[in-house]
Amino acid sequence: MLNAAVIGTGFIGSVHAKNFARHPNVKLVAVSDVNIESANRIAAATGAKAVPNADEILNDHDIQAVLIATSTDTHVDYLERAAKAGKAIYCEKPIALDYAEAEKAVRTVRATGVPVMLGFNRRFDASHAALRETVVRGGIGKIEIVQLTNRGPKPPPISYVKVSGGQMRDQTIHFFDMLRWLTNDEPIDLYAVGAALVDPAIGEAGDVDTSIVSLRMASGALCQIDSSRRTAYGYDERVEVFGSEGMIESTRQSFRGVSLYQDCQVHRDGMYPGWFERIEQSYYEAIDVFLKAIESKNPPNPSLEDGLKAQLIADKATESMRTGQPVKIST
Amino acid sequence: MLNAAVIGTGFIGSVHAKNFARHPNVKLVAVSDVNIESANRIAAATGAKAVPNADEILNDHDIQAVLIATSTDTHVDYLERAAKAGKAIYCEKPIALDYAEAEKAVRTVRATGVPVMLGFNRRFDASHAALRETVVRGGIGKIEIVQLTNRGPKPPPISYVKVSGGQMRDQTIHFFDMLRWLTNDEPIDLYAVGAALVDPAIGEAGDVDTSIVSLRMASGALCQIDSSRRTAYGYDERVEVFGSEGMIESTRQSFRGVSLYQDCQVHRDGMYPGWFERIEQSYYEAIDVFLKAIESKNPPNPSLEDGLKAQLIADKATESMRTGQPVKIST
Amino acid sequence: MLNAAVIGTGFIGSVHAKNFARHPNVKLVAVSDVNIESANRIAAATGAKAVPNADEILNDHDIQAVLIATSTDTHVDYLERAAKAGKAIYCEKPIALDYAEAEKAVRTVRATGVPVMLGFNRRFDASHAALRETVVRGGIGKIEIVQLTNRGPKPPPISYVKVSGGQMRDQTIHFFDMLRWLTNDEPIDLYAVGAALVDPAIGEAGDVDTSIVSLRMASGALCQIDSSRRTAYGYDERVEVFGSEGMIESTRQSFRGVSLYQDCQVHRDGMYPGWFERIEQSYYEAIDVFLKAIESKNPPNPSLEDGLKAQLIADKATESMRTGQPVKIST
Amino acid sequence: MLNAAVIGTGFIGSVHAKNFARHPNVKLVAVSDVNIESANRIAAATGAKAVPNADEILNDHDIQAVLIATSTDTHVDYLERAAKAGKAIYCEKPIALDYAEAEKAVRTVRATGVPVMLGFNRRFDASHAALRETVVRGGIGKIEIVQLTNRGPKPPPISYVKVSGGQMRDQTIHFFDMLRWLTNDEPIDLYAVGAALVDPAIGEAGDVDTSIVSLRMASGALCQIDSSRRTAYGYDERVEVFGSEGMIESTRQSFRGVSLYQDCQVHRDGMYPGWFERIEQSYYEAIDVFLKAIESKNPPNPSLEDGLKAQLIADKATESMRTGQPVKIST
Repeated sequence: MLNAAVIGTGFIGSVHAKNFARHPNVKLVAVSDVNIESANRIAAATGAKAVPNADEILNDHDIQAVLIATSTDTHVDYLERAAKAGKAIYCEKPIALDYAEAEKAVRTVRATGVPVMLGFNRRFDASHAALRETVVRGGIGKIEIVQLTNRGPKPPPISYVKVSGGQMRDQTIHFFDMLRWLTNDEPIDLYAVGAALVDPAIGEAGDVDTSIVSLRMASGALCQIDSSRRTAYGYDERVEVFGSEGMIESTRQSFRGVSLYQDCQVHRDGMYPGWFERIEQSYYEAIDVFLKAIESKNPPNPSLEDGLKAQLIADKATESMRTGQPVKIST
Repeated sequence: MLNAAVIGTGFIGSVHAKNFARHPNVKLVAVSDVNIESANRIAAATGAKAVPNADEILNDHDIQAVLIATSTDTHVDYLERAAKAGKAIYCEKPIALDYAEAEKAVRTVRATGVPVMLGFNRRFDASHAALRETVVRGGIGKIEIVQLTNRGPKPPPISYVKVSGGQMRDQTIHFFDMLRWLTNDEPIDLYAVGAALVDPAIGEAGDVDTSIVSLRMASGALCQIDSSRRTAYGYDERVEVFGSEGMIESTRQSFRGVSLYQDCQVHRDGMYPGWFERIEQSYYEAIDVFLKAIESKNPPNPSLEDGLKAQLIADKATESMRTGQPVKIST
Repeated sequence: MLNAAVIGTGFIGSVHAKNFARHPNVKLVAVSDVNIESANRIAAATGAKAVPNADEILNDHDIQAVLIATSTDTHVDYLERAAKAGKAIYCEKPIALDYAEAEKAVRTVRATGVPVMLGFNRRFDASHAALRETVVRGGIGKIEIVQLTNRGPKPPPISYVKVSGGQMRDQTIHFFDMLRWLTNDEPIDLYAVGAALVDPAIGEAGDVDTSIVSLRMASGALCQIDSSRRTAYGYDERVEVFGSEGMIESTRQSFRGVSLYQDCQVHRDGMYPGWFERIEQSYYEAIDVFLKAIESKNPPNPSLEDGLKAQLIADKATESMRTGQPVKIST
Repeated sequence: MLNAAVIGTGFIGSVHAKNFARHPNVKLVAVSDVNIESANRIAAATGAKAVPNADEILNDHDIQAVLIATSTDTHVDYLERAAKAGKAIYCEKPIALDYAEAEKAVRTVRATGVPVMLGFNRRFDASHAALRETVVRGGIGKIEIVQLTNRGPKPPPISYVKVSGGQMRDQTIHFFDMLRWLTNDEPIDLYAVGAALVDPAIGEAGDVDTSIVSLRMASGALCQIDSSRRTAYGYDERVEVFGSEGMIESTRQSFRGVSLYQDCQVHRDGMYPGWFERIEQSYYEAIDVFLKAIESKNPPNPSLEDGLKAQLIADKATESMRTGQPVKIST
């Protein structure tokens, strides 16, 4: 039984804390947050103790694993300190907003040899994972076209938009990672177009809320990703991989199955209202994979390097939007 | 190239006439109807000649095939005369409302040796036929449960209800035939319950508009059929066959594929408004099968005997409803 | 915060224990089982203490609520003792295999005034509940036809079949309850046919594994229920309610959404392998409803009387199968 | 009753001829083809007369309408001659492979004032048309993202590829027209990437078989089109329009509705094997619209100008692929 702690008990940190609390192979011993009331609340709900300062966690030799879910600007600091303290680390993405800074942190962390997993939890969604399993074993032959859709349900506050790094680095980055993971391949160039169609204030903040990205993979496969910050029908995430011997789709999903027949129409019920409801379970699966990796002493995946690569693609897509030109991605 | 004629140019007769007219292997030479204007109209639309009397058709040695689509009370007379005249016959169902009369007519017709096909056209629906093909080749193992649904879209006029022989003989009979055909099996007993839930006037006319029938097949398989004269969502026909190695369904269908996503719902478009739109194509396929049977000198299916058997089941279901008791079906 | 205990830590008891353990409004303090190792295992997993005897639970004044998940033959005894001890009770169905005995127990329990909820957890399935909400608010008009399907995935051991009371009382009973609940109505007569098509040994044990039941409701609505102990495609549960103004279906469901396109076919993935996976979440929802009822001092539903009524229908269906005759249900 | 003739009785010409032959408001009087046997065959099947030379058709004053379905390099000549002869014209796309030549022909034809319709028949597909009707009446709000997929089923012969003008001008052009029609909008710039992933011989012929195109519309909406010359699952055509108030999809379709449940999977049957089967009916609808336009003296749509615009987009997409740069489209 491993002892674990969660640093940062905001929305995602509290999700992770509860998943640790109900996982049979780990004991959540401590949580911390700059907002001590938040930490207290999560402590009460999980049976962990709340500590006023992450240092207590990092210095506690009985804690083998830490999960970093603080604000992005503190990730590098906690990553480096936790690594030096010899903890196994699950770190929320991104490593840092700035690529060079992220790369430097990765070098520092890698020197310590601790196992680190990066929070690209969509890799653990049951549908995406089943799709990938088929793709990887050659079930659809050679990959030729990939289509990824991620939309909605509603834009974040403008205050968040301003510090988010932009739609590519904040939202689409998950799908850049998914693309690499699904295809076992790397993009070699891309072209991105975006606009603030949902909310002009997002445009005024220098960001976009609607975008399409075309990517060419090293294998020659072509990829399209469309992203929107808002839908009028809940959360919309769809993956389609088209290959030489078939096509496979991870479809839009409903959380229940009810169909009303009326007026020559079928009204199907229950699209997920938000991204969290849609992929909630994958957070638990990610923790499970993290724990199993530690136990088996295998390096966990997705890795810090996966984080760097997705981030580089997001940077290049942002550059393409700005310049209006296609951009090469040197690997 | 065969020469054919259609006797009776009401709704279904005119459908058949147009199908003959566009089929490459047959020439529609004549149509007749007691309503000469109707015959003239169909003649104009198909290029056939309208004749005032079916006798002209039956006496014309250049006509090899006739299709009987007159009112049910005249079927026996035309069947017997067409058979004696040596014509190949496609006869709309039922043979006669009265089982004994129908049975006698079948004996008379069979004595002549002419090929006769009965108009259970659902056997030629692409979906039902594909389902049956899988069932018959053992694709779902041994049949255990069959579910047949046929509903709507709206009740016929009361005047029709009064002479129709009742819901079992008029509507459900198609599904009694389908059951025999899908399973290559015969029912040995049944229990039927019905009520006039849609329109009390149907109840006052001694009929029902909503019913369920339970049947036990010789093989031991169990079957449920539900029928309604009205839906609020178009025409509803569904077939489900459950077996020891799988289940197969001929699903509710739409005539187009449009899905609107709104308010966490998916609104799928285009259920067929009526039974005719749903199975229109099967009328053409039935004519095609009839023509091929004549050409190849194989006895066409469904046969007159299939008509008698479906009719016997309908009679027994009507009896069960009346008595409130299960009824045996002696084959 | 309520204190609760679970008596019986077999498969279902352990499910309930874990749901208590993760529910924020209740504290699971004790579990007991005749198999002390089982109780110890569940105690370890939930943080409760294992007690060697249910008496300790029933005599503990700090425990306000008990859940009875022991073998059916002990339900009446625990029900009566827990009621006399003033506990709120969640009891797994059925109350007793024998209707008269169950009825007597209900009278005894009712005299104590304690709140009791019976474990018809399907009422809390998200899809069925959403369907019912539409039906109850008149969204499909007057109910005319109800179709319930429950199949598979595989037969219980013969040893269980022999003491189960038969398919009607053991399996179909959930759907008799569902029928009453969905329609807010009572059946007035029924006709049932069954056979041992899956396993002859089930027939030799005097039971059936495949059955269809036709029921007529007080409102005039007609209902069909088909049940099978085995499928070759996972667990199959489907509800369809057809009314004067539309039809609504709680559909077959998959636990993920993956579609493979190949050879002009779409292969959709992920049917639930078993009944438990399909309705697992409803066990948690049922506990939640139970706790809320206690808190709000409203009588919980489904009630003991709901249990008696479903049991009476199951008895009548068993009788109909045996006699081959329709049976009236006096309410 | 209009008299019509078909010039060119290859595959598509023969489809049109048969549709004329079965349409009640037109009489197909003549067909011609450089291959006189082909013309004779279609004449026999339709009741028209075969003429050895298109001149006979163009000079026949009793023929009011001609359909041009000859090889592309002869379109301009027939268009101009038919226009000068005062015929109403239905012309297969494209007008000419060379844009300047096409533009010149349009000017010539327009000077005569005859009604001309261009063969973008997908506009008359029931599903696409129903989607558009919803989009145009504002049913999904302001358009933000459009996704068009067109794939397969298999590459044309290399001999055809070489004279086809390339994938953009030959295949994707239909979807450039669809995009303009669905959105009532024009693209202002685009970026296209393509590759010969299906067959290297296509690459050696200077063409691509797999491609993605990103377009930006004047309204700001973003569009993605993916095209492939081959699938392993039949023909794949899909339209998705995402807007501020909802999303609407014209889905992949099957020609029948059969679902086989086995091994926790649902195997749905009957994807259309090819593009023709999928959109066959739209050819008939297009002819119907053409005839109605002539009758009502309204200019038919899609127009020659629609043809020019789609062609210009195809040219620009081809240029973008060649240069690797985004391209502006001056309207």
